[in-house]
Amino acid sequence: MKIEPIVWKNSNVCVIDQTRLPHEFVVQEYDDPEEVARSIETMIVRGAPLIGVTAAFGLALAAQKNTSPSLEEARKSWSRWTERFHKTRPTAVNLFWAIDRMKKVSARNWKDVNEWKKKLLSSAQAICAEDILSCELMGNHGQVLIPNGAKILTHCNAGALATAGWGTALGVIRSAVKAGKKVSVWVDETRPFLQGARLTAWEMKEEGIPAQLITDNMAGHFISRGEVDLIIVGADRIASNGDVANKIGTYSLAVLAYENKIPMYVAAPLSTIDLKCSEGSQIPIEERAPKEVTEVGGQLIAPEGFPARHPAFDVTPSRLITAIITEMGVAKPPFSHSIRELFQQ
Amino acid sequence: MKIEPIVWKNSNVCVIDQTRLPHEFVVQEYDDPEEVARSIETMIVRGAPLIGVTAAFGLALAAQKNTSPSLEEARKSWSRWTERFHKTRPTAVNLFWAIDRMKKVSARNWKDVNEWKKKLLSSAQAICAEDILSCELMGNHGQVLIPNGAKILTHCNAGALATAGWGTALGVIRSAVKAGKKVSVWVDETRPFLQGARLTAWEMKEEGIPAQLITDNMAGHFISRGEVDLIIVGADRIASNGDVANKIGTYSLAVLAYENKIPMYVAAPLSTIDLKCSEGSQIPIEERAPKEVTEVGGQLIAPEGFPARHPAFDVTPSRLITAIITEMGVAKPPFSHSIRELFQQ
Repeated sequence: MKIEPIVWKNSNVCVIDQTRLPHEFVVQEYDDPEEVARSIETMIVRGAPLIGVTAAFGLALAAQKNTSPSLEEARKSWSRWTERFHKTRPTAVNLFWAIDRMKKVSARNWKDVNEWKKKLLSSAQAICAEDILSCELMGNHGQVLIPNGAKILTHCNAGALATAGWGTALGVIRSAVKAGKKVSVWVDETRPFLQGARLTAWEMKEEGIPAQLITDNMAGHFISRGEVDLIIVGADRIASNGDVANKIGTYSLAVLAYENKIPMYVAAPLSTIDLKCSEGSQIPIEERAPKEVTEVGGQLIAPEGFPARHPAFDVTPSRLITAIITEMGVAKPPFSHSIRELFQQ
Repeated sequence: MKIEPIVWKNSNVCVIDQTRLPHEFVVQEYDDPEEVARSIETMIVRGAPLIGVTAAFGLALAAQKNTSPSLEEARKSWSRWTERFHKTRPTAVNLFWAIDRMKKVSARNWKDVNEWKKKLLSSAQAICAEDILSCELMGNHGQVLIPNGAKILTHCNAGALATAGWGTALGVIRSAVKAGKKVSVWVDETRPFLQGARLTAWEMKEEGIPAQLITDNMAGHFISRGEVDLIIVGADRIASNGDVANKIGTYSLAVLAYENKIPMYVAAPLSTIDLKCSEGSQIPIEERAPKEVTEVGGQLIAPEGFPARHPAFDVTPSRLITAIITEMGVAKPPFSHSIRELFQQ
């Protein structure tokens, strides 16, 4: 089954509602850019690359909705939408990368409003297509690192659902399977939002890749018993020194991998690398609503009103990372050097 | 509020139903030893010391239910109950410790059945009272290690609810508060059974100790940012070399504590130390139903039928443990030596 988390159809932005998976497969059709922005905030769509693609389509939609015949007017009112999308989520840098790219397209001196609208739409479609291609290239580069028979642990969902298709970390796993390797996957459930239990498990099931679900706190147990050969995760933002912000819990896995001498791989497109961030401490970490911790599926799991914290991401220092797999190749330590090289190809 | 997880009342074993907390406070009254055994299996009662006390009361109840006038007959039929309780859960050694102690009481040459019944009941009551006393002593020894202002992280519930009262790890925290120290507590929710979110949070709220709930995978984030000064947990079984079996997730916390150079304390009574186990690899790890992972409060969180694993405990090697706090004092490395000394006092 080909998973298409986002498509442009009948002048609408159509996304798979990831809050309803795995029990219901619902496609939301948006004809209002505000709904698209909200779908990012409420995690109907999530995953750094997909957030970028969604913002691009949301901005394309905003342009199509413009009614002013003046190109200047259109650009001016459209720029408010770039601000709106800018505020949806703070950590994944792909969002800002996609908005910036769309802004550059808008700023180019097109002849008229219709051309401007067309260019913005075709750019969003290009961003989407490039994302899938990136994932496939990442898969090709990354699958070389996966031994036949590997027992692989992954966290959160860095799958087709986190991208425009194929996936980053799960893309590497898919490519390894495509290359004829037998693998099995440990799926961290990934509290509080359960992207592992809901989304990665769903993708593995759809794909027929052998996988087992565990709670996040079981990873260490299986790693220490030699039942995990390698860890592979995605990323929400990578600093130029190789520090990685990713879903909360990634740092703990990296420490466990280091302690138990197994590789810790990160798979992400170059659009996830923020060269303006020299180290992880500069990456803003989103703190989401405590309610997302104290409730599971609308059911309160703690005493009424009990205080909770909800950092959605953590930062893994680059010294704990074995390699960063991108569409341009695999970066190894020292990352400051190898990451720069990827951009110079 | 004084928390009494188990009492003998009107010839019944009365326990707080820990599966119903924090939303409902329900006391179950059992007049059938089989119900008591099942309350251990289904985790209506849980926590290593409380499991021991519950088995002792269950066996006392089994003795009271005896109708044979022959002491030999009574002992013989009662010994089947010791086998029944033996099978309830495999990891917490306090269970076997309590059963063995009750068996020794039964084997002593009492004059008649009535005296035998009385002795078994008074022994169960003694085991219960001693457990509370142990916790208080543990608290006194352990609170010395807690600095004023400490930000303490704990996992699972090693509180009053895990014992006959006061608690092991939470007992140390209670004693620190009683000694006038200001502390704050990070409560790991402790998937899959959510003992942290449901039970530790409830105890902290009842007690008015400042606390915040986090998902298990957030611990590393806060530890790495210097927001955790020390970790304290209970134990289900401690090998004679100091290796500790405790609730799944404890090993990961110990690795994170070691990496970030903060103390990792374990609080447990001597009845949790299994001198017959020379190292952690000999401790049997219970594997519970996958359904307890794939469902939260009866709600399926993964695709229908998705495979899951559920080791209920993990083993932390003693080299990652700073000190073991017992009722007889605090053992420090090398544990093989210091643990032996505790038993010789």
